[in-house]
Amino acid sequence: MKKYKVGIIRVLTTVDESILLSHQEILSDFFKDFDLETQCIPDQYEGIHDDKTLNEAVPKIIKMAKDWEDRLDGLIISCAGDPAVKELKNILKIPVVGAGHSVATISRNYGEKVGIIGIEKEAPPTYIDILKDNFLGYEKPNKVENTNDLQTDEGKKAIVESAKKLKKEGADVLAFACTGLSTAKAYKLLRSIDIPIIDGVIAEGTIMLNKLIENEMRSE
Amino acid sequence: MKKYKVGIIRVLTTVDESILLSHQEILSDFFKDFDLETQCIPDQYEGIHDDKTLNEAVPKIIKMAKDWEDRLDGLIISCAGDPAVKELKNILKIPVVGAGHSVATISRNYGEKVGIIGIEKEAPPTYIDILKDNFLGYEKPNKVENTNDLQTDEGKKAIVESAKKLKKEGADVLAFACTGLSTAKAYKLLRSIDIPIIDGVIAEGTIMLNKLIENEMRSE
Repeated sequence: MKKYKVGIIRVLTTVDESILLSHQEILSDFFKDFDLETQCIPDQYEGIHDDKTLNEAVPKIIKMAKDWEDRLDGLIISCAGDPAVKELKNILKIPVVGAGHSVATISRNYGEKVGIIGIEKEAPPTYIDILKDNFLGYEKPNKVENTNDLQTDEGKKAIVESAKKLKKEGADVLAFACTGLSTAKAYKLLRSIDIPIIDGVIAEGTIMLNKLIENEMRSE
Repeated sequence: MKKYKVGIIRVLTTVDESILLSHQEILSDFFKDFDLETQCIPDQYEGIHDDKTLNEAVPKIIKMAKDWEDRLDGLIISCAGDPAVKELKNILKIPVVGAGHSVATISRNYGEKVGIIGIEKEAPPTYIDILKDNFLGYEKPNKVENTNDLQTDEGKKAIVESAKKLKKEGADVLAFACTGLSTAKAYKLLRSIDIPIIDGVIAEGTIMLNKLIENEMRSE
């Protein structure tokens, strides 16, 4: 069986293999057509959580993507802020997918009023741009300032509180705006919330597969 | 390898196996996780192409879906008008996907200005509802009145003309609003149009897979 070679760029620097490969492991469980490999950008131990850390990450992602392109069919930037995704669409020949636009678009197949949970002060601009008046509200879990804070017991409790609040406000679907929520397996924490939950890593995998298929169809 | 049992409801009545199974064949080429089966609704030889044919189709689709649900993991209504999809979401326990909302949402991962090609007088309401000001324009290929007209030489020429017109008007992505365009393999006709083309059958397969994965994750 032919597989698509898909690269994953993590925007969180880590030497812990279980964290480094956490998105790859989720994708390999559900997307059997992908032959996956992961790299993380250097010197970014708190990932991307504001404009400063975003601006620092973009040139690192672009360099890594250019160096890697020749060996890939597609590239996932596994971050809901979609850092460097627009730039790379004009630079690379292979499809590039970020978690943010993937989650935002997919959420509308599940509901009309999208509640968003993330780690920045406000919802990433892509979500607002795509959802427009289907954006219901945004919550940053209490005391969570970066992706690492989502992995603690306190962080996990706060995620559940955010989800409950958004549901109470009328959300009929919850969309994650941080792939750290995938690492934390937040969808498991939210079992009791009986509305759909759109996971960033599953969403980026879904849109990557769509782009690879569209490419293949056109080149047939 | 475990496969998802996915049913496809065709809203065009046909005894021609090659037409009946045309969507199933596209899906089976690209979605190896699906174990597919197709049924078509009765007495609808011109498919759905206006309000009257839509209203006739809805109860037939609902009956077929209810009778079939027990043997399926997911159900695709393979039509861009998403007939009965909203109703079935409240009736069935398995995920239900239509081509329309799938194409509309996925198109925004490819571009900002979405040009739509379909066979009704206007773009299906789901497309407008999802795309809002990212909807650039709509074209019905000249003299095409129903899905069968898309399969003729004249129909195929008219599809290319519609695509060229939308691109000239500024579309940066083309979205199909009729799955008859998948049957006609319109993406092949449009090789010379160098903007992305979102195929309805590939889109509905993509969103079906996303929903099956999300379901499986939550029940793990």
